[in-house]
Amino acid sequence: MSLPLKVGMFGGGTVGGGVYEIMEQTKKELFKAGGVDVTIAKICVRDVNKKRSFELEKHTTMVTDYDEILEDDSINCVVELMGGVTHAKDVVFKALKKGKHVVTANKALLAQLLPEVKSLVAENAGTTLGYEAAVCGGIPIIHNMQGSYVGDSIQSVMGIMNGTTNFMLTKMETEGADYAAVLKEAQDLGFAEADPTADVEGHDVQAKIALLAKLAFGQDVALDKVPCAGISNLSSTDFACAKMMGCTIKLVGTAALGESKDKLAVFVSPVLVPLGGPLASTRGPGNVVVVRSENLTESVYAGPGAGRYPTANSVVNDIVRLARLGAAGTPPPFPLERPLELEPDFEACFYVRVTAADGLGVLSAVGAIASEAGVSVHSVLRGGEGGGGGGEEAGVVSLVVKTDSCLRSQVGAFVDGLKGKKVATADPVVMSIL
Amino acid sequence: MSLPLKVGMFGGGTVGGGVYEIMEQTKKELFKAGGVDVTIAKICVRDVNKKRSFELEKHTTMVTDYDEILEDDSINCVVELMGGVTHAKDVVFKALKKGKHVVTANKALLAQLLPEVKSLVAENAGTTLGYEAAVCGGIPIIHNMQGSYVGDSIQSVMGIMNGTTNFMLTKMETEGADYAAVLKEAQDLGFAEADPTADVEGHDVQAKIALLAKLAFGQDVALDKVPCAGISNLSSTDFACAKMMGCTIKLVGTAALGESKDKLAVFVSPVLVPLGGPLASTRGPGNVVVVRSENLTESVYAGPGAGRYPTANSVVNDIVRLARLGAAGTPPPFPLERPLELEPDFEACFYVRVTAADGLGVLSAVGAIASEAGVSVHSVLRGGEGGGGGGEEAGVVSLVVKTDSCLRSQVGAFVDGLKGKKVATADPVVMSIL
Repeated sequence: MSLPLKVGMFGGGTVGGGVYEIMEQTKKELFKAGGVDVTIAKICVRDVNKKRSFELEKHTTMVTDYDEILEDDSINCVVELMGGVTHAKDVVFKALKKGKHVVTANKALLAQLLPEVKSLVAENAGTTLGYEAAVCGGIPIIHNMQGSYVGDSIQSVMGIMNGTTNFMLTKMETEGADYAAVLKEAQDLGFAEADPTADVEGHDVQAKIALLAKLAFGQDVALDKVPCAGISNLSSTDFACAKMMGCTIKLVGTAALGESKDKLAVFVSPVLVPLGGPLASTRGPGNVVVVRSENLTESVYAGPGAGRYPTANSVVNDIVRLARLGAAGTPPPFPLERPLELEPDFEACFYVRVTAADGLGVLSAVGAIASEAGVSVHSVLRGGEGGGGGGEEAGVVSLVVKTDSCLRSQVGAFVDGLKGKKVATADPVVMSIL
Repeated sequence: MSLPLKVGMFGGGTVGGGVYEIMEQTKKELFKAGGVDVTIAKICVRDVNKKRSFELEKHTTMVTDYDEILEDDSINCVVELMGGVTHAKDVVFKALKKGKHVVTANKALLAQLLPEVKSLVAENAGTTLGYEAAVCGGIPIIHNMQGSYVGDSIQSVMGIMNGTTNFMLTKMETEGADYAAVLKEAQDLGFAEADPTADVEGHDVQAKIALLAKLAFGQDVALDKVPCAGISNLSSTDFACAKMMGCTIKLVGTAALGESKDKLAVFVSPVLVPLGGPLASTRGPGNVVVVRSENLTESVYAGPGAGRYPTANSVVNDIVRLARLGAAGTPPPFPLERPLELEPDFEACFYVRVTAADGLGVLSAVGAIASEAGVSVHSVLRGGEGGGGGGEEAGVVSLVVKTDSCLRSQVGAFVDGLKGKKVATADPVVMSIL
């Protein structure tokens, strides 16, 4: 059953170095205990002369030409850790066509091309795909989705899947700091990139929740069908108001079946989550995934979502599973694809922060526009000094409207009305409340 | 690779009924998607005429004689859901000797006899053992311990693994209720048994942490080597004091390597855990397991620890994995057994609540006895009315001593001194602080 693996690895950076270190440290014990036989024979890098974070063993060669691995028939497993889509696609597609197993940590590639990659796996008998590291780094969420719900029926998957933004939101929550200040701190610490768009606008989470939606519901979800709101418009006022409501704010990727079970809502958005629950308890760069299902009610998986050793650990788990089980270890396509309609609209209670010119009649105007949109108002808080803390500019008032349960589209109409009638002097901040 | 399974199930009660329902509901889809072919052919019960919670399909027969399953060569998988040790041992041992695969939810059996069961699996080629449901019901902790740490090195496993006591402790925390009152409520609700000893004295957790210690450290841990303290001596004063220290109290099973990595401490005890962390956030009947390891730092698995469908879901996962992979799916014996010394002593900061006769000199006496025992006192709180809330009897004072980091054995000497010198008028309450 076990399959001796000769591995060609693409990428010798942070994660690649971690994979190499872990494999070399543990391979003797793995072989002794489980007959696991893995040799990383070649590592393809851009510059063989660059100093590496790991010592190269004699059985490993550094190469720069992709084909040194892809055309080498003795290599039966390609580990792709290059990132990006263009070159990684060439490597993964050709490896599968050559009959090689593929293990990848490439979330962007799979979120764009998973159906094509799966077709290639199906067409090239004996090949398999491992991608545990592509979603939430060190959390074994892919494997659990594939193996722990085979007789169950998942209702929703939601999670905090971006460590950079969670680090920032935790700072905003605990220190009352504002967005710009925590972004700068995250950049100074190397947590956030110079161009933080992919993180703070939620695109990174978008790719991850699309992959989890496929695993939970058997549904291919195109990225452009996943509405995505980020955290760049949040302020300390929002955290103060959230706290008054017994909540904090997290950037959450959600994939949830509607009640009728024929509609699927997949979206990324900041969400008010109750203090004391699993989402609120995930602090700093941690990640968490919460799965609601018929048999298990709620299961929670939490751990490090990124970093050298967590991500490498997931890659190693995939490699070892392959070496132990060969192609037999391929997870079956549970659940079967069902006819589900992607429906970005969903029902929830919402938080809408409206910035308006201070003066008589504001509340009445907001109320009237809510009614027109069919939005029932549960309560209104005053943000800023008078209420939830956080400063307000002179002459400007922040009203936080908490709605009763309604549709996201109705809240959209409410917001359009506020802007159209010039009651709101800035774009309102909208979040669902868990 | 896939292995058509003809299953004989022992037990048609709560969990057995759940397994039967889930398998019958999902078998067609599992077969279609993954070629999984499972038939539950016979169910062995005490009384075939008893009304069951599920409808029997034509392909299933109810039997009362064990040998109708064990001597039936067409049955290649035994699912044991009887509980208890005596009869379950007969069934599991004979099934393995007959070359049948075994899936069991029987924690008591495995905690006592895992080495013997593993020997039988090894001696009878082609047999395998699945026991996902034996620890923490619906949490896939066994499978994750077996598959997610193959290249990692675990430092500690700890968890809340008993729903009954966690329900009780949550009530004591949130409602300020006392032990006797919450026990009665738990019994009235059917959460606690008439004789609650196994739950409240920690014996149930003892069995589970022994099994997890084996998976994490490759070490067989005999139950009588696991020191075990329960929750029956906790009072509302302890929760009030814990809260003042930013903590709450949970019954925790722990298996932790010492710093030198050659000693292993395995024990069950109430523990002060920091509010906001994963252990404190697990409320009501929920379970959680926290694994600390070199690569992943901290991973958390939470979910329902008991109940019909959660436990049945884990049994079904084991059955389906077996049907997909056959004997190849047997997890390898990672990690290898290492020479570890079981050392019940461990280092921590401790909470010691001392009940003493009120009067001058109590504090000085407590301080002197602590010094003699080599225990450095960090701080002293006054329990009861003057301090942490909760009533005190007249003439009696509760002092809560928080120690600096020291050994459990030193705290034991401290407690012995308090009792020996009659400073403590009742057994002190001792907990470690996480």
